[in-house]
Amino acid sequence: ASLIPRLPASSPTLFEAKKAKNLTFEAIAKELGREEVAVAALFYGQAQASPEDIQKLSQVLGIQQSTLEDQLAGIPDRGRTLDMPPREPLIYRLFEIVQNYGYAYKAVLNEKFGDGIMSAISFSTKVEKETDEKGDWAVITLRGKWLPYSRF
Amino acid sequence: ASLIPRLPASSPTLFEAKKAKNLTFEAIAKELGREEVAVAALFYGQAQASPEDIQKLSQVLGIQQSTLEDQLAGIPDRGRTLDMPPREPLIYRLFEIVQNYGYAYKAVLNEKFGDGIMSAISFSTKVEKETDEKGDWAVITLRGKWLPYSRF
Amino acid sequence: ASLIPRLPASSPTLFEAKKAKNLTFEAIAKELGREEVAVAALFYGQAQASPEDIQKLSQVLGIQQSTLEDQLAGIPDRGRTLDMPPREPLIYRLFEIVQNYGYAYKAVLNEKFGDGIMSAISFSTKVEKETDEKGDWAVITLRGKWLPYSRF
Amino acid sequence: ASLIPRLPASSPTLFEAKKAKNLTFEAIAKELGREEVAVAALFYGQAQASPEDIQKLSQVLGIQQSTLEDQLAGIPDRGRTLDMPPREPLIYRLFEIVQNYGYAYKAVLNEKFGDGIMSAISFSTKVEKETDEKGDWAVITLRGKWLPYSRF
Amino acid sequence: ASLIPRLPASSPTLFEAKKAKNLTFEAIAKELGREEVAVAALFYGQAQASPEDIQKLSQVLGIQQSTLEDQLAGIPDRGRTLDMPPREPLIYRLFEIVQNYGYAYKAVLNEKFGDGIMSAISFSTKVEKETDEKGDWAVITLRGKWLPYSRF
Amino acid sequence: ASLIPRLPASSPTLFEAKKAKNLTFEAIAKELGREEVAVAALFYGQAQASPEDIQKLSQVLGIQQSTLEDQLAGIPDRGRTLDMPPREPLIYRLFEIVQNYGYAYKAVLNEKFGDGIMSAISFSTKVEKETDEKGDWAVITLRGKWLPYSRF
Amino acid sequence: ASLIPRLPASSPTLFEAKKAKNLTFEAIAKELGREEVAVAALFYGQAQASPEDIQKLSQVLGIQQSTLEDQLAGIPDRGRTLDMPPREPLIYRLFEIVQNYGYAYKAVLNEKFGDGIMSAISFSTKVEKETDEKGDWAVITLRGKWLPYSRF
Amino acid sequence: ASLIPRLPASSPTLFEAKKAKNLTFEAIAKELGREEVAVAALFYGQAQASPEDIQKLSQVLGIQQSTLEDQLAGIPDRGRTLDMPPREPLIYRLFEIVQNYGYAYKAVLNEKFGDGIMSAISFSTKVEKETDEKGDWAVITLRGKWLPYSRF
Amino acid sequence: ASLIPRLPASSPTLFEAKKAKNLTFEAIAKELGREEVAVAALFYGQAQASPEDIQKLSQVLGIQQSTLEDQLAGIPDRGRTLDMPPREPLIYRLFEIVQNYGYAYKAVLNEKFGDGIMSAISFSTKVEKETDEKGDWAVITLRGKWLPYSRF
Amino acid sequence: ASLIPRLPASSPTLFEAKKAKNLTFEAIAKELGREEVAVAALFYGQAQASPEDIQKLSQVLGIQQSTLEDQLAGIPDRGRTLDMPPREPLIYRLFEIVQNYGYAYKAVLNEKFGDGIMSAISFSTKVEKETDEKGDWAVITLRGKWLPYSRF
Repeated sequence: ASLIPRLPASSPTLFEAKKAKNLTFEAIAKELGREEVAVAALFYGQAQASPEDIQKLSQVLGIQQSTLEDQLAGIPDRGRTLDMPPREPLIYRLFEIVQNYGYAYKAVLNEKFGDGIMSAISFSTKVEKETDEKGDWAVITLRGKWLPYSRF
Repeated sequence: ASLIPRLPASSPTLFEAKKAKNLTFEAIAKELGREEVAVAALFYGQAQASPEDIQKLSQVLGIQQSTLEDQLAGIPDRGRTLDMPPREPLIYRLFEIVQNYGYAYKAVLNEKFGDGIMSAISFSTKVEKETDEKGDWAVITLRGKWLPYSRF
Repeated sequence: ASLIPRLPASSPTLFEAKKAKNLTFEAIAKELGREEVAVAALFYGQAQASPEDIQKLSQVLGIQQSTLEDQLAGIPDRGRTLDMPPREPLIYRLFEIVQNYGYAYKAVLNEKFGDGIMSAISFSTKVEKETDEKGDWAVITLRGKWLPYSRF
Repeated sequence: ASLIPRLPASSPTLFEAKKAKNLTFEAIAKELGREEVAVAALFYGQAQASPEDIQKLSQVLGIQQSTLEDQLAGIPDRGRTLDMPPREPLIYRLFEIVQNYGYAYKAVLNEKFGDGIMSAISFSTKVEKETDEKGDWAVITLRGKWLPYSRF
Repeated sequence: ASLIPRLPASSPTLFEAKKAKNLTFEAIAKELGREEVAVAALFYGQAQASPEDIQKLSQVLGIQQSTLEDQLAGIPDRGRTLDMPPREPLIYRLFEIVQNYGYAYKAVLNEKFGDGIMSAISFSTKVEKETDEKGDWAVITLRGKWLPYSRF
Repeated sequence: ASLIPRLPASSPTLFEAKKAKNLTFEAIAKELGREEVAVAALFYGQAQASPEDIQKLSQVLGIQQSTLEDQLAGIPDRGRTLDMPPREPLIYRLFEIVQNYGYAYKAVLNEKFGDGIMSAISFSTKVEKETDEKGDWAVITLRGKWLPYSRF
Repeated sequence: ASLIPRLPASSPTLFEAKKAKNLTFEAIAKELGREEVAVAALFYGQAQASPEDIQKLSQVLGIQQSTLEDQLAGIPDRGRTLDMPPREPLIYRLFEIVQNYGYAYKAVLNEKFGDGIMSAISFSTKVEKETDEKGDWAVITLRGKWLPYSRF
Repeated sequence: ASLIPRLPASSPTLFEAKKAKNLTFEAIAKELGREEVAVAALFYGQAQASPEDIQKLSQVLGIQQSTLEDQLAGIPDRGRTLDMPPREPLIYRLFEIVQNYGYAYKAVLNEKFGDGIMSAISFSTKVEKETDEKGDWAVITLRGKWLPYSRF
Repeated sequence: ASLIPRLPASSPTLFEAKKAKNLTFEAIAKELGREEVAVAALFYGQAQASPEDIQKLSQVLGIQQSTLEDQLAGIPDRGRTLDMPPREPLIYRLFEIVQNYGYAYKAVLNEKFGDGIMSAISFSTKVEKETDEKGDWAVITLRGKWLPYSRF
Repeated sequence: ASLIPRLPASSPTLFEAKKAKNLTFEAIAKELGREEVAVAALFYGQAQASPEDIQKLSQVLGIQQSTLEDQLAGIPDRGRTLDMPPREPLIYRLFEIVQNYGYAYKAVLNEKFGDGIMSAISFSTKVEKETDEKGDWAVITLRGKWLPYSRF
């Protein structure tokens, strides 16, 4: 609830419709042909909706298309949902992974690719669930284009 | 270089031997039967070395076993390599992914698993390289046990 | 009062009903079969209510069940009640205990269990009152599952 | 290792002797008649050693008594081992417990005791290990004198 | 004015009545048998009102007792009025005294009392005015119980 | 120990001599005709030594006067001993008093004196010990000149 | 505009009247017999208005005297307009002067006056405009009473 | 003393020679034809020395010119002497003036000059001492070129 | 959306009219004879509008001139749109350029111009789009007057 | 000077040789066929040296090639030279440009390119000097590849 002042106007519209329709991100993602994380990011104002996304969201969520067009117009102003370090325990664990393994990732990536970065823009991510005899496992995959530093 | 004061005594020992032997993390990881990221984390003092790891590191890196036993004894004091937010661009991109997609991950994980977190302890990670016509792609996989909140 | 903007909509509903009914956390906890701290955490939006919890809270507090179902639906967005370092003296004392004894706890826990952490998720806690000739004593017990670091 | 510049001169003396003698905190604590956490705190410069503690530490660790008397003289300058928020995952979990349950503890403590705080000075703490079919559990007990606010 | 959102509901009630009645803290303190600083702290939500305090405040300030009972019920949530470092020059001077003389106070207190702290809970304070040929002087007295660290 | 890099060269000189001579601040203060807190502040580089102070410190501590003249020459660079918020529990309690009672002090001081501040420069302070049936009490007195804001 | 929530109620009253009357601070300052900076500070709630100031402000700005008496009653709660470091470029330049020349000012002031400070309370300041062939120059004068540290 | 690690190599050279020669900034400033504050800034590495400055400093301070040429070569790396907010009381008072009067200065400067800033680069400053029957006064003058914002 | 509380009243007026009229910054900039970045800055309250700008904005955007005159009167209070470090990825990249190349820019600028700064006030900037076989490129040009430090 | 502890071992080697040879970045850049800013960044450890760069640096600076190969081996650990916000006035002006115009750049770039960022990796930059009748102007050009957000 108290996250709402940080979110764009589209967020309560989308979340309330999702709750009323009792839909999962998985179901909506299938309709849009996008990843669940991308759909959730769109709900939080962290990803852009294409015109087709808007049309399908309107249908599946039962929201007037003009409302969505108005609220989802423009380009996201990202980075507003979260203060760092995150205080939410689930999100903190991801932060901790960066804190603890940051230099290890850099060392291995530099060894494999040379001097550069993994893009967070030309990038996709997904979440999967695996189950074995030890219990459930969450698997998060990050896939980003390797960008070498330009020589200039 | 200026990272060194933050690292345990084992770090320069390991990095210098790796450079002198001209070895990759990939090669060392194969010897140890561990992931490259785990080996790099071990080099930065962020992962524990088992007695067998120490023995194999001694062999492959040409470091006296007693030196390694002494420097790698005990349990890591993690979290010292990095100030947050990270200033290194490669590591910052990972931080940015958490900042932008943190609530989206939470929403999707909660939908799939209920109330809980993905463990960063009962956890493994790896880095892979993919190449297609658009160029090179880095793929980072995070796999953690799902821990539901205890009811009490 | 000024804490309210940080709390979910359920918090004023619950606290006002508790005050109107003149109930203690102890009494409510007995009804729910949960620890007092868990119940207080639920009031502050820091713990999840099960469907049975909601039903019982509705009864004992005299709140319409549909209101509670609506306000307590979903999974808590934890960590919003408190800025760290805490300024409230009672809470600061707990913070100070972590600050002063943090490494001592780590040293003793690592000695007893090896490399890992005490889970704050697979976790329970309780508060007890003891009285002796010197006065009253508060006893807080933290009990968490030991999670060893995965080798990978 | 990199924690050392933050510690008093006594810390390396004590830790090195403990390692050389291959002693546990448990064993040393038994000799001193103190809790393991207290002994570890003493090693990190966060608790005061009495003259008898010094004498016994000298014996059990094989350190010249005059060295210990010199290095452990005076009153601890507490709070220097840790920057908050803690980056060490084990210690962070304790911090997170305070962050998430701080107001719940306050609510329950105020209900049981009235207006006041649990002392962190007139205070003791211990760590225990429990094992059941689900695995190992760490149990941390905090016991502090209740101090009511003076009316003035 | 802009301090108000940080204060509990009782604060504007009390301050407005005090202004309307044109009363000083000195006068109110006399009625309540408390120190002026305690009364001012009560106005800012930093001290608890006893039932007798509420009754007398109701009388002297001309506020309905039920209003005060409602607004002053419960236990203060202290520490919300001020961000540190304080920006108000008068309050900053007190902060500066702690910053500059903090270790000197510790050295002298430890010398006089041993290892422990001066309680800020079992504590009282008062403000006095002195005048001599050089002008006016403010005298603030802090009196706290000495709490020795428990040996454990 | 780890405080030393923050202190001027005079601090170890003075503290070591004090320890060697087994003198209290009380005894030294009597020699100098100053308050104990002032003497301790001088030891920490937070107060200036007059030529007579230097002469007497040389005698009572058995330090060559030229050494002291050299190390105590010049005007203190104050404020370096402490990071705020203080982590030392004893000093934190003083900080907490400012945090909790800051606006109460301001309200009472403004009522007694008008618009202005209590000087922390034209200022003195002392520490006293009181004992009654409830135990020991520390009493800290702050006395500062009242400075009204200039009208301009 | 977005500065308004930080300002006391008197600020919009004063600024709107000034705009409606199309008056400069210079003109108002002349009426009040004060410096322009003092008048602007009064508008921002950073300086106290005397009864005569209120009377004259009422006349010159065409505001009802009772409104001003009500809104300007009491003693300013200073320091609320600005977060440090300032982000406004004009104000940042003043901050930068303190950052770059702070120790130079201290060195020169200590040389001229001994150990002490320049008061910011017993203090006045003014702004002047000079023009020469190179363009316009702003001249800010700060004049504060020298306060020597008390010996105690 | 503990400021030294933040200063360039030239600073101890200059300060020690100044002390050995028992010279004031005033005397040195006269030799160089510069303001005392500029000379002190030069000593702290916050202002550039011209070749003539170096020659004269060499003469007046009795330092070998080649040493000074080496240590004062290059362009200052400004801003390193001070962490903000400043903890030194004298420097804090200047910071407080910016904090309290920042918007008042902006309002008056904008009224006199339009949209722009007072330069801190095309800038000079000086310190003067005034004495009247009330005591000593420090007068600091800041004079900076007015830079209007470019229209583009 | 959630940026709006930080912006002046003119911002929603301007952005809504721009959206309603379906105009680009490019088109508006042509009307005003200004750079697109300047126009966007004006929309965000970071640049001043001249009387002619107001007149033209009124025409092209179809807003009543008196509304714009009222909302765009006065001089911008700059620096309010953004907390640093920026969380928006696009803006963070610019921040990162300053972080990584800051000292390199300083070294090259000092070599070319001597001791001084590039003005951010007597300054203009523009954005251009280039396209080649590798894709699209954004080109940002910053042009500022060189200001040498005054000798004083 | 005090910047040195933050820089890699190669930095003093390079800067001292440059000073001894009295070479400009311009001259070195010509030898290497790189931009001056890139060369300065290389000196500060913020850009990678190719084998040819190392060979040419060795020649032009008169440093043994093996020394440079050793010190410049590996991939830069960027972002260590600067704490943000920068305190150096020249670098601060660049920071201020991002702070003030950040959203304006975003608005214009999004309008021209759609949703994405300007890369700081696939990026080049240069500094030029222009002179006109008003004086000298610094022109900094930033050119980065436009990266559209991936749809996923």
